[in-house]
Amino acid sequence: MYRSHNCGELNASHISQEVTLAGWVQKTRNKGFLIWADLRDRYGITQLIFDEARTQKEVFELAATLGREFVIQVKGTVIERESKNPNMATGEIEILVKELTILNASQIPPFTIEDETDGGEDIRMKYRYLDIRRNPVKNSLLFRHKVAMEVRNYLSGQGFIEVETPVLIKSTPEGARDFVVPSRMNEGQFYALPQSPQTFKQLLMVGGMDKYFQIVKCFRDEDLRADRQPEFTQIDCEMAFVEQEDIIQIFEGLTRHLLKELKGIEVSAFPRMTYDEAMKKYGNDKPDIRFGMEFGELNEVAQHKDFGVFNSSELVVGIAVPGGAAYTRKEIDGLIDWVKRPQVGASGMVYVKCEEGGTYKSSVDKFYDQEDLKKWAEATGAKEGDLILVLSGDEFKTRTRLSALRMELATRLGLRKPEEFAPLWVVDFPLLEWDEETERFHAMHHPFTSPKPNDIPLLETEPAKVRANAYDLVLNGNEIGGGSIRIHDKATQQLMFKYLGFTEEQAKAQFGFLMDAFQYGAPPHGGLAFGFDRLVAILGGQETIRDFIAFPKNNSGRDVMIDAPSTIDDAQLKELSIKVNLA
Amino acid sequence: MYRSHNCGELNASHISQEVTLAGWVQKTRNKGFLIWADLRDRYGITQLIFDEARTQKEVFELAATLGREFVIQVKGTVIERESKNPNMATGEIEILVKELTILNASQIPPFTIEDETDGGEDIRMKYRYLDIRRNPVKNSLLFRHKVAMEVRNYLSGQGFIEVETPVLIKSTPEGARDFVVPSRMNEGQFYALPQSPQTFKQLLMVGGMDKYFQIVKCFRDEDLRADRQPEFTQIDCEMAFVEQEDIIQIFEGLTRHLLKELKGIEVSAFPRMTYDEAMKKYGNDKPDIRFGMEFGELNEVAQHKDFGVFNSSELVVGIAVPGGAAYTRKEIDGLIDWVKRPQVGASGMVYVKCEEGGTYKSSVDKFYDQEDLKKWAEATGAKEGDLILVLSGDEFKTRTRLSALRMELATRLGLRKPEEFAPLWVVDFPLLEWDEETERFHAMHHPFTSPKPNDIPLLETEPAKVRANAYDLVLNGNEIGGGSIRIHDKATQQLMFKYLGFTEEQAKAQFGFLMDAFQYGAPPHGGLAFGFDRLVAILGGQETIRDFIAFPKNNSGRDVMIDAPSTIDDAQLKELSIKVNLA
Repeated sequence: MYRSHNCGELNASHISQEVTLAGWVQKTRNKGFLIWADLRDRYGITQLIFDEARTQKEVFELAATLGREFVIQVKGTVIERESKNPNMATGEIEILVKELTILNASQIPPFTIEDETDGGEDIRMKYRYLDIRRNPVKNSLLFRHKVAMEVRNYLSGQGFIEVETPVLIKSTPEGARDFVVPSRMNEGQFYALPQSPQTFKQLLMVGGMDKYFQIVKCFRDEDLRADRQPEFTQIDCEMAFVEQEDIIQIFEGLTRHLLKELKGIEVSAFPRMTYDEAMKKYGNDKPDIRFGMEFGELNEVAQHKDFGVFNSSELVVGIAVPGGAAYTRKEIDGLIDWVKRPQVGASGMVYVKCEEGGTYKSSVDKFYDQEDLKKWAEATGAKEGDLILVLSGDEFKTRTRLSALRMELATRLGLRKPEEFAPLWVVDFPLLEWDEETERFHAMHHPFTSPKPNDIPLLETEPAKVRANAYDLVLNGNEIGGGSIRIHDKATQQLMFKYLGFTEEQAKAQFGFLMDAFQYGAPPHGGLAFGFDRLVAILGGQETIRDFIAFPKNNSGRDVMIDAPSTIDDAQLKELSIKVNLA
Repeated sequence: MYRSHNCGELNASHISQEVTLAGWVQKTRNKGFLIWADLRDRYGITQLIFDEARTQKEVFELAATLGREFVIQVKGTVIERESKNPNMATGEIEILVKELTILNASQIPPFTIEDETDGGEDIRMKYRYLDIRRNPVKNSLLFRHKVAMEVRNYLSGQGFIEVETPVLIKSTPEGARDFVVPSRMNEGQFYALPQSPQTFKQLLMVGGMDKYFQIVKCFRDEDLRADRQPEFTQIDCEMAFVEQEDIIQIFEGLTRHLLKELKGIEVSAFPRMTYDEAMKKYGNDKPDIRFGMEFGELNEVAQHKDFGVFNSSELVVGIAVPGGAAYTRKEIDGLIDWVKRPQVGASGMVYVKCEEGGTYKSSVDKFYDQEDLKKWAEATGAKEGDLILVLSGDEFKTRTRLSALRMELATRLGLRKPEEFAPLWVVDFPLLEWDEETERFHAMHHPFTSPKPNDIPLLETEPAKVRANAYDLVLNGNEIGGGSIRIHDKATQQLMFKYLGFTEEQAKAQFGFLMDAFQYGAPPHGGLAFGFDRLVAILGGQETIRDFIAFPKNNSGRDVMIDAPSTIDDAQLKELSIKVNLA
């Protein structure tokens, strides 16, 4: 047995006990006749003391050779510490060491194993196994485990069954790019890795499984933005014999349970908002409602004056920045520059300072009088001391730009508090969205989402107006879950594929098995999926998901620690009936 | 809300309640003025009754159109059943239906959805979603979920952390064939799917995670035997600061917990046996010890007589078949034919009948007298009425053949009772095994397994004799878990790669990251992995794993339901920088 206790559990109650500990040397302090070492493991840190007067000579000399991250085993006596550390669980005691074994020496680590490390992102990725020793990463992984356990126990308690769906499936042209896997046994053919277990969970509903969930790896071969991973984890759920309301109740319950168990936060019924309302109020289908700054539409009050920019705009819309009237000209110019950056894309921004005493000072005083500007203040909810910022142009783009500005300002103003949690359901999403590039409609959610029955006639006439039985769960400005009631009859599913531009043959080749299944007693069903990495990060109070993934990949999809992907040899390629074909 | 109750919960206590149920029509019975339908869901079956006298005309007429597997919703009153069925949870009641909605019609299913179906394996695979409706498959999947929950809760309670390791990793030439995934972003390079998370879990130990587990999909591109799957699930575990005994204790505890919670069986400490002993006694490193029939070695008592076949054999070994003295000549010839089948490969078999009154009758009476044969009976433990069967030849092959015969006889004699559970640890496995084909030693477990320290010197002189700190957990003749204490220092790992025929460059290119990690304070560690599919099947009392996998693949690695793998289009191939290259 390597240890009798771990490094986080000894306290005054153990004094005078003989113990055996094992762990890593966090640091040592050598005073000549006294050597201290902090011994670290997953559970904490315990102070060791080697005393020239009381420790055997060989042990004392060996202790003098210890370096950072050496792995050692010690036997000794728990004694009271002279200078106690009340901030440490083990701060009352130390171990007077009698025996010391170096289990493994360590080279000097390439960065310090401390909460605040001197290592940059790249070096920490390469030596991820060392980064994991640091509390911020270690605690994130422990937290992730806890969240997963809570999810499983909650859903299992609600009668859900975790079913493993296959990883080697079939490539489908819809959606993001698939990762594919050449089949050796079926020459010239490929499996695909699932972007989600969507069709399988629907087939489980057809199979009568009724309440399914799975915490499952999914894969998307997309160009990676800063905080995306090619493989990610999803809490995937589906239920049969349910309507939207049943699903919302169950997963609101799950989310409330997680907030309570993991954060100690009680949340009452989550607010709901339609997609249209979210876009109108926040320019965003996943609004952060921890703060206000709702949009004020200004078309009525700002158009039909002499300001041509606004008159020629589809939409004029503003927000009130609390306390922003005090901004200097330079600060305001900075904000104007910010919205003109290519990532945001506005061509300019109008501002109005709402000054003390109810007067207004704007960048468009030439075109608008005090009475006009007062109406702007009313529309945006601006109070004395606030700053109104106004964008105009194409409706959708202008909303999106103002949303980006709203989020940026909230971040700068400290309104996005990580310890605050504001969940929100966004419902009634459009069924289809127009894709400029391919010049056709795409399924906003996916092709299996059911249109609202009343809107089905609009499919022929105004497809963009058809609403879906689709809903997203938004938490602090992040979409953490999304789902829908599915189509469960063959005719509607065929119709949907038709509207999405599939030929009958394509639909049959790709999804024939699903439409076949619908002919043998498919129950009404629906579900939802949570992005697990993101959910855990947000619950953990973090913006980025990387610390919550044990071995993440970098932005080129590489694992720099193991150096993957890599070339494979010709024999292997030949066996798989493929050739490398560099452009 | 589609239902107020499920189809398995109503009983006499609900009589006269108004309820809403939804489910599948299992079958109907039409007596003209009365129609009964069995309504089925995941939870059970409830009898519906439509009574011409008491049911509205339209409802009654609609009920007459119901077919098998129609999905319906009914509202009605719980009434006492006239002829009660005590074998059904809901057997005391039926529902007098007032409202009936057909939620989805069904075509006639391609096989009957009954416990005993008329559908063959192929058709049930193609319509797996219908097969899942059948109790045997449904219950297997529910059972699997329960086992997984028990595993997670037990290990989590023991301080283990579930950590997700990556699925897109690096191809390694060691072991079975990898499935590979071409990388679009890293042209000409490939990820591999993990055969196990071996190196990652070791890196988690280096990272201080201490007690890791994961229920995880693994992948092997092997030619599939009847009961193998290209993707399979493993309970993967690793611990730091442990010796073999610590690991055995923990996972014996887990197995005992599962047997108790899921089967209601209390098992005392598991027996242990060395690999050598298992091979000697049972000719098998995963012996089924639910029954005896231990091997008796006969070299001493059977050689040096006039029987040339035995004299020229490396090993003469026999087993006693209980009651086998009563076998007819035809039955014994059948057994001889059985061992001569190419799958077993014996060239012949000698038998001895131990007859009443202590006399022996053998096929080699010409060479052995009664006194000789008595010694055979003593060596094999044969009693009066038993039959001794003897094989001879090359030591390893002969043991293996006799083991096959032992298992076959036990099956025929009904000694392999599925409701009986006999776990066993097999320890002290050889480190290396000779591979005839490549003419070199391979790691019996894997290249990270540590040799027993005392045996290290033998690596140079008698590599086949080096024992490893490796252990298997065997249950009813199946290896359900296997593991080892790992190498945790760079020098030993390098040595091991050398003995396995890696050049220094190869070792570095493939596993440099692991050997690097060993230089930064790697703790002693070890672990084990359970084959989850097999474990669940055995606990479920079944021999085959397919019913315990929701969507299994066939022996060609195909998912016949979704028709995967399949071809992908040229644009996709081009993006991935590969070409199909058929032989």
